[in-house]
Amino acid sequence: MKSVVLEKQGKMAIKDMPLQGEMTPESVRIAVKNVGICGSDVHYYTHGRIGPFIVDAPMILGHEASGVIVEIGKNVKGLAVGDKVCMEPGIPNAKSRASKLGIYNLDPDVQFWATPPVHGCLIEEVIHPAEFTFKLPEQVSLAEGAMVEPLAIGLQAAKKAAITPGDVAVVIGAGTIGIMCAISAMAGGCSRVFITDVKREKLDIAASYPGITAIDVTKENPLEIVKKATGNWGADVVIECSGAPAVYKDITEYCCPGGRIVLVGIPIDPVPMDIARIQAKELDISSVFRYANIYPRAIELIASGQIDVKKLISGTFPFKQSLAAFERACEMRAGDVKLQIEL
Amino acid sequence: MKSVVLEKQGKMAIKDMPLQGEMTPESVRIAVKNVGICGSDVHYYTHGRIGPFIVDAPMILGHEASGVIVEIGKNVKGLAVGDKVCMEPGIPNAKSRASKLGIYNLDPDVQFWATPPVHGCLIEEVIHPAEFTFKLPEQVSLAEGAMVEPLAIGLQAAKKAAITPGDVAVVIGAGTIGIMCAISAMAGGCSRVFITDVKREKLDIAASYPGITAIDVTKENPLEIVKKATGNWGADVVIECSGAPAVYKDITEYCCPGGRIVLVGIPIDPVPMDIARIQAKELDISSVFRYANIYPRAIELIASGQIDVKKLISGTFPFKQSLAAFERACEMRAGDVKLQIEL
Amino acid sequence: MKSVVLEKQGKMAIKDMPLQGEMTPESVRIAVKNVGICGSDVHYYTHGRIGPFIVDAPMILGHEASGVIVEIGKNVKGLAVGDKVCMEPGIPNAKSRASKLGIYNLDPDVQFWATPPVHGCLIEEVIHPAEFTFKLPEQVSLAEGAMVEPLAIGLQAAKKAAITPGDVAVVIGAGTIGIMCAISAMAGGCSRVFITDVKREKLDIAASYPGITAIDVTKENPLEIVKKATGNWGADVVIECSGAPAVYKDITEYCCPGGRIVLVGIPIDPVPMDIARIQAKELDISSVFRYANIYPRAIELIASGQIDVKKLISGTFPFKQSLAAFERACEMRAGDVKLQIEL
Amino acid sequence: MKSVVLEKQGKMAIKDMPLQGEMTPESVRIAVKNVGICGSDVHYYTHGRIGPFIVDAPMILGHEASGVIVEIGKNVKGLAVGDKVCMEPGIPNAKSRASKLGIYNLDPDVQFWATPPVHGCLIEEVIHPAEFTFKLPEQVSLAEGAMVEPLAIGLQAAKKAAITPGDVAVVIGAGTIGIMCAISAMAGGCSRVFITDVKREKLDIAASYPGITAIDVTKENPLEIVKKATGNWGADVVIECSGAPAVYKDITEYCCPGGRIVLVGIPIDPVPMDIARIQAKELDISSVFRYANIYPRAIELIASGQIDVKKLISGTFPFKQSLAAFERACEMRAGDVKLQIEL
Repeated sequence: MKSVVLEKQGKMAIKDMPLQGEMTPESVRIAVKNVGICGSDVHYYTHGRIGPFIVDAPMILGHEASGVIVEIGKNVKGLAVGDKVCMEPGIPNAKSRASKLGIYNLDPDVQFWATPPVHGCLIEEVIHPAEFTFKLPEQVSLAEGAMVEPLAIGLQAAKKAAITPGDVAVVIGAGTIGIMCAISAMAGGCSRVFITDVKREKLDIAASYPGITAIDVTKENPLEIVKKATGNWGADVVIECSGAPAVYKDITEYCCPGGRIVLVGIPIDPVPMDIARIQAKELDISSVFRYANIYPRAIELIASGQIDVKKLISGTFPFKQSLAAFERACEMRAGDVKLQIEL
Repeated sequence: MKSVVLEKQGKMAIKDMPLQGEMTPESVRIAVKNVGICGSDVHYYTHGRIGPFIVDAPMILGHEASGVIVEIGKNVKGLAVGDKVCMEPGIPNAKSRASKLGIYNLDPDVQFWATPPVHGCLIEEVIHPAEFTFKLPEQVSLAEGAMVEPLAIGLQAAKKAAITPGDVAVVIGAGTIGIMCAISAMAGGCSRVFITDVKREKLDIAASYPGITAIDVTKENPLEIVKKATGNWGADVVIECSGAPAVYKDITEYCCPGGRIVLVGIPIDPVPMDIARIQAKELDISSVFRYANIYPRAIELIASGQIDVKKLISGTFPFKQSLAAFERACEMRAGDVKLQIEL
Repeated sequence: MKSVVLEKQGKMAIKDMPLQGEMTPESVRIAVKNVGICGSDVHYYTHGRIGPFIVDAPMILGHEASGVIVEIGKNVKGLAVGDKVCMEPGIPNAKSRASKLGIYNLDPDVQFWATPPVHGCLIEEVIHPAEFTFKLPEQVSLAEGAMVEPLAIGLQAAKKAAITPGDVAVVIGAGTIGIMCAISAMAGGCSRVFITDVKREKLDIAASYPGITAIDVTKENPLEIVKKATGNWGADVVIECSGAPAVYKDITEYCCPGGRIVLVGIPIDPVPMDIARIQAKELDISSVFRYANIYPRAIELIASGQIDVKKLISGTFPFKQSLAAFERACEMRAGDVKLQIEL
Repeated sequence: MKSVVLEKQGKMAIKDMPLQGEMTPESVRIAVKNVGICGSDVHYYTHGRIGPFIVDAPMILGHEASGVIVEIGKNVKGLAVGDKVCMEPGIPNAKSRASKLGIYNLDPDVQFWATPPVHGCLIEEVIHPAEFTFKLPEQVSLAEGAMVEPLAIGLQAAKKAAITPGDVAVVIGAGTIGIMCAISAMAGGCSRVFITDVKREKLDIAASYPGITAIDVTKENPLEIVKKATGNWGADVVIECSGAPAVYKDITEYCCPGGRIVLVGIPIDPVPMDIARIQAKELDISSVFRYANIYPRAIELIASGQIDVKKLISGTFPFKQSLAAFERACEMRAGDVKLQIEL
């Protein structure tokens, strides 16, 4: 089957690969239709590794996918051949301690698409466990279905934020995940979200959603704006999506007493944090590692119209132009939120 | 000062009453502008009592109010003469055990407007503690300000529902409070709300909000609809707003495993509940008594456009026609969500 | 293999039955050592059914078990032949929606020992999934290991009670499960537990634990005692373990404002509850269905000495006297908390 | 009245000072009986300041106090002349936003004993608000009453740790507050607590409590011990009480997936934290600033025997030897947990 393979750092090709895995009575076979390009795909391409995960053998890329079911295991219920679906890319050991606790994303044995040595989904067909394959309602397109994965990170952050209806949130960083967090925070119960960045195009996209106010930190003082908007009380929730080391020390200043910080951005090295100021407001800090039990929520929110992901698809490339799609992704254009490949 | 006084059961009059209370350094004097008529006002008028609260002396009615500050105590900060405000009608003892815990609505000594023997706010001016007086942003009208009180009950229910982003909710009963709960559940993070009632007009009003689906129980089977919509899983949250005794025994059927029920409607007598079925799904049940710390959230959600209360104001009467307003309220027209009196 | 089989209502026998199930790489084979007799075992014996679960074919009884591993699947980690273990008796479908959420006890497909048509563990050997088999530390005996199951219900209740350190709890009903809830509430952070019953022997056993005060409702007024002990504030937590229909209507009187009720006892029919009084204190009510993710906690609490279950073992019978053990259990002696059979 | 006054850095005296404050109908006058010496008292004595709080005028020291009521305001209920009491030392503005939310410890206007410019309680008598004065049960001594304040910090940490019954905790640092956190974690529902330090005497005191295991980090590897004890899973809760900058970067290693860290120790400068490792386990971090609504819980736990604070009182000095008491406190003897002055 045709697939997009990262042969090694900097070398990608469309080539034939066998269908991965084997059908079981609990799995489905899916014709892949839309695959979003994630920053991690690009990073494996350009750097050949992410932290401890090293591409030392050819690997099919891609993990943000939708498709149509073409075969179904005999024990599978609630899915049928011909169904539009999207696929959760991380498969845990269902019997692990973490899985039994409902935090299967934290199972150390999770197999996640396009994370070495596990192949991804930029291939004509995949075999997938039925319980991680989710039917898309009629009104949700395959393109939207492939947006569920990045949205799920935003919703995991919104869930961890423990939003009380009417909370004010600040999202630091308006990259793809920052925007996903901002729209998730709004859909998740906030009255307003302030989002900060240095790139005007990204801020404009974020600010096109109701309730979201963009702050261009090259021109405005975000702390003053948040303080003024909250009568000097501070924001209930701060979602850190930049990973910029300089942000952490003073992040407490955005927060109200008893407020919450959610860590989404990933700085490479340890960053300085000011414990005394965290304590002075008794802040709670939570963190996000992918997501668990979020796909059905993301699909519901898209289906009901509460979250619009369509306008975040900045470009769609046919499968045979996958390499061009990756080259475009490598350009990191400020106006590109998500590029998709269509099979 | 002119006021609307309930002299005794069935006898109401516009008459002169003195300004109630005395200015302190921590209070403000407010020219009352808009007052919503609550079901409790009507009930005191028609029945002369609500449970243990008996009207045995003339009482000024009204507790859903907005106004403009005309005088300000010398220690008051953050408010100024001329400010548009709305007023939280229940004043607790700030030093009580419940208040110290942040659940001041449960302080047994709370003084609540228009709850015998405490006078209400259908009078030209009121004196009110600054900490229960909330400035309205420019874009929030005085009419909307007087909607904050009933909305606060809906938001208290949404807060108690502990909504996770994307939850599906069922609201039973589309009276004023049922609608407030439904729009609060949507603003509070639900993907969809199903609301049930027998009155078509109320259902139509509810269904005019995005995300809310009305179910006319005289024509449709709400349980079947909810099960179908959730793939037979059930709703995450059920908010009971009808107080209809027959509802409680089978309310569990709407819920998903691990789901939550919020009790808002108030049946007069004890109602039968099926403990074994509550346990079979390990349901959590919470309950609502007015609200605490909700006014700033309600104002934020109206100000940011997340909640539209304007279309729920079904009629506005000038102060001198207050008695006509009450007669209309007594008619209980299906299309009337909230009637207001304007001073 | 020798086993205790309920042939039909009222007819029990020790007879040969084949080893149930088949070894897989993820399972272990266990020589059963201690099995507690549960009220449900007795009820199947005396009534032939519990609600919808009907004994219409011979069924091996027993679900509270410990044993020693005699064979081990090749993929099993953390367990070894010769290990003392106890076994969680309910096996869910690990891929169900409930299991993925961490609430596997609510999976409708759970297979639970000695619940028709599933055989129990009163047999010489059982095959069991490794992930529901828990190694007992050296200092925990096999007899204690067989107490983990009933204790787990108490700990599930304590977990649902969301105890804040220092809470005062009331446990209604001092049967086996009531006592388990009381000692779990103490170990779970309460400062004091009041337990009520009519049977002096059971109350005396409960009161032998530090922190637990017994109230004999035939002689004392439990409500007055709780109010006095809490300065008229009420208990933070009430755990209902009696299932007595008359209890529910006034159960709110024990609670403090903002308090919590946990429903453990199972009344057969719907019971009257007073919604208005629940609301007046904004009580939260939660409920218990068996347990999930509790076994490791129960074992830790026994091993560390925080919970003593040894003194709740009221009698131990050799396997060949199993029928005598059941006859004794049917007597429902007030001083019997738990009877065990030893293989 | 005789009082212990810090005249300026390094200069302390017993001298006459007037009774501070004035009686109101809601306050009580208390003859002070026992006062614990806190590290902050010592630090003001030796350094003349703590962060932004500078001793620039003579200040009465002490904030950990018990006493006997000698006069009572006319509106005070639940207290009487002659009652043994302990006093919560921080008085917030009851009408502040933080107070209304129940987090009065975070009110920026809180007045806290012996925090410049507010006088403390090392004086013969104090006037105190009744709602922050707590009656001691008969079985709780005045010496124990003065231990409620430091214990309250431990219990605030245990509350923030959101302990589920049976959790395993690690407490880093066995100073007075570390020990308070360890015994609070045990009383709050843990099965076991590991506590680490370099000082053998402190570890021995901690380890004298059931359930607490001391780890001498000069001789043992705490991480290996915790991993082994938890089957390589990690601790559910880590309470950081050392404030040692080197601890923070690797603190995640103690935690299980989904675990919680509570920040109690206060490093002076920002410390490096490893965000990626926090995220890999989706850890939640909370923090402690004094306490709110904890005094009644602390008193209950002492009164019921769940927490023994008596053995933490390492020495008691008569009032006239207060200066000697402070000199001893300055020695920082490893075996001294708490020194008290008795009036």
